Amino acid sequence: MLQLNQATEDQLREWENTLAGQYKHYQQAGLNLDLTRGKPCTEQLDLSNALDGILAGNYRDVQGTDLRNYGGLDGIPAAKALFAEMVGASSDNILIGGNSSLTLMYTVIQFALYHGVNGAASAWIKEQQTIKFIAPVPGYDRHFSICEMLGIEMLPVNMNEQGPDMDEVEAMIKADPSIKGLWCVPRFSNPSGITYTDQVVERIAKLATIAGPNFRVFWDNAYAVHAIEDNAPVLANILEISHQYATEDSIYAFGSTSKITFAGAGVSFVATSTSNLSSLKKLLAYTSIGPDKINQQRHVLLLKDFAGIQQHMKHHAAILKPRFKAVLSRLQEQLADAGMGNWTEPKGGYFISFDTLPGLAKEIIRLAAEAGVKLTPAGATFPYGKDPDDKNIRLAPSVPSVNEIEQATEVFICCVKLASVRQKLNG
Amino acid sequence: MLQLNQATEDQLREWENTLAGQYKHYQQAGLNLDLTRGKPCTEQLDLSNALDGILAGNYRDVQGTDLRNYGGLDGIPAAKALFAEMVGASSDNILIGGNSSLTLMYTVIQFALYHGVNGAASAWIKEQQTIKFIAPVPGYDRHFSICEMLGIEMLPVNMNEQGPDMDEVEAMIKADPSIKGLWCVPRFSNPSGITYTDQVVERIAKLATIAGPNFRVFWDNAYAVHAIEDNAPVLANILEISHQYATEDSIYAFGSTSKITFAGAGVSFVATSTSNLSSLKKLLAYTSIGPDKINQQRHVLLLKDFAGIQQHMKHHAAILKPRFKAVLSRLQEQLADAGMGNWTEPKGGYFISFDTLPGLAKEIIRLAAEAGVKLTPAGATFPYGKDPDDKNIRLAPSVPSVNEIEQATEVFICCVKLASVRQKLNG
Repeated sequence: MLQLNQATEDQLREWENTLAGQYKHYQQAGLNLDLTRGKPCTEQLDLSNALDGILAGNYRDVQGTDLRNYGGLDGIPAAKALFAEMVGASSDNILIGGNSSLTLMYTVIQFALYHGVNGAASAWIKEQQTIKFIAPVPGYDRHFSICEMLGIEMLPVNMNEQGPDMDEVEAMIKADPSIKGLWCVPRFSNPSGITYTDQVVERIAKLATIAGPNFRVFWDNAYAVHAIEDNAPVLANILEISHQYATEDSIYAFGSTSKITFAGAGVSFVATSTSNLSSLKKLLAYTSIGPDKINQQRHVLLLKDFAGIQQHMKHHAAILKPRFKAVLSRLQEQLADAGMGNWTEPKGGYFISFDTLPGLAKEIIRLAAEAGVKLTPAGATFPYGKDPDDKNIRLAPSVPSVNEIEQATEVFICCVKLASVRQKLNG
Repeated sequence: MLQLNQATEDQLREWENTLAGQYKHYQQAGLNLDLTRGKPCTEQLDLSNALDGILAGNYRDVQGTDLRNYGGLDGIPAAKALFAEMVGASSDNILIGGNSSLTLMYTVIQFALYHGVNGAASAWIKEQQTIKFIAPVPGYDRHFSICEMLGIEMLPVNMNEQGPDMDEVEAMIKADPSIKGLWCVPRFSNPSGITYTDQVVERIAKLATIAGPNFRVFWDNAYAVHAIEDNAPVLANILEISHQYATEDSIYAFGSTSKITFAGAGVSFVATSTSNLSSLKKLLAYTSIGPDKINQQRHVLLLKDFAGIQQHMKHHAAILKPRFKAVLSRLQEQLADAGMGNWTEPKGGYFISFDTLPGLAKEIIRLAAEAGVKLTPAGATFPYGKDPDDKNIRLAPSVPSVNEIEQATEVFICCVKLASVRQKLNG
């Protein structure tokens, strides 16, 4: 395969010509493909269709609680047991919420900001004029937008193969007591797909020993059980490790069934220390009488236990694996050693992260859009939508069919090549 | 019947003696009755048992949207149409949320406080050091606790037979631009059970013409369709009236199905102006990907249309009517003209409000508790839990059986008489 850096100018011109023709062909094909959305496809959703009607008329849980009525601020015991096992927490240290872990994260952060992680005196706004969070990049845009909304300044830190660059994270935290939070998607990270190594997890668990008061890690374990490959890396249990360092108050571990059962009608949860949970429940009691307990019971009956969840996730993997392969095999065949960018080969989660040559992400996304392939907007994976190198593109292959993904990837690769060759020619 | 003010001291002593014996008898009976909770009883919840399984495997709505997936921040169109009709709004002017209207109210108020009702510049905190709400009393404790949590000062205004004392409300608002909110439970008010008259509704709709900027009415129409009697008073449509005065931005009208279907697993909604709704959706988008659309569809299929809701509510009325009668007929028989207090005779809702002689609410609640009858804590219906006259008691007769309510009311009446006679003797 021709490499960008080894091509002569003539070769580049010829290449550009060929690619432009290919691109024009795609443009004329009137494609309408979409790799933007990190959401389950229809077949995945079908796996949980038994949820509606699963109660078979029995609206009471094993404790005899009438699930239809008010109450139960922190969720039903059976749901606590089920998801505590999944996240490796004690069932006394978990709260089961409504259908959105994003809402739970927003709620916890907003409480911390105005009402305190541990009583009113601990409210972040009482301590600092400006509150800052460390945002590993590339990362999840909806984490960043919570911070934007609440006026929390984000400090980007690069992700590497092991997780966030911990030297940088530790140095920043030592230097600046106004840093109150660290965002993490620790397994099959959004979008890079990497899983934090044991060493990184341990260093994150220890951050509270050097951080200012009321520092918290927002551990969004959205893809906790979402392996695609059998040999997918396992994530260390930060809740356990934080016990060893007596830093358990610094961890809020979030999760949900949005990508286990129904994306919009699942249940969310947060596992945290006894003290954090007690503070959270006190505040939550002002704002809610309790979550939808019936939907929690539906999930208990469908998934049963952690083994049931793992079995269920195998079916998801079977649906997702060929979709990821459709992208990854093409990238490998057509772009390996081309010198036109790098990408991750995640063993789980929902995303492939592609880094173009610097300055080309926006252009490639534009080219793809004009050839009928929608990609996540450039910059979306960075705070304030600003990718300083304009290079990261998030590919989300879960929703389209394998055939559509194959087509979309061909178009994407053509756009990567075309933009890269043109940049080289014009450079 | 002997009246308190006409009894001689000897008569009072004899009366106290008889009542004390009766009270001792109740104490020894080992009763365990509860009139505290404004929630539906089992028979009421049974009316909606068809909800689970009602989709019959069809997870798409009439628009073809897959209800299982993410999205739809403001609810599904069919749910908008259904509840817009119920609250007398346009279906473009309603947002359908999750299972809790309390959460929706908290969210709207918290947004207004920190992020503005109409852009960041309108945030209440930017305008005033202290934000105040008018709280008609007696009222709903969970409204008051939202204000307490957010540091919003509450100014009590007395409720009368027509609604809040509007002369007082208007005078306060004219005098104090830091008043940003008015709480209302306009039909079958919690706890007094009265329905605001047309004149009061109109005066509330006009408040924005004299109020400071960004003033809002929090119109919690929790009992909109919850008549028990056929001749129950009808509530004027404040959304329509506010159009006439061009004050539609001042009204947020909340509702839910908590007391129509399942208390803990229903759907909530807010109807408001186009401008308010647009601002609300912009902010909500930071905190949520959308509500549980499946549960909204279940409600659409169960209730169908406004006629369906009205039919459904007749079954609720049939269950609640004998429970209210069990209290009201006993109060009438045993306390009318006794000079020991007044009570409301609501034609809908969940509560009867009883005013004792000044200074006796706490004592009567204590006496009742010691005879096995739990009542809502004294002061709960006032901001900060402080009933200045210590006289209001909220009776909630929906949950116990008719027989239990009869017993509990007998005990309550004995406690009212005993406390009143003793006060007279000691006065």
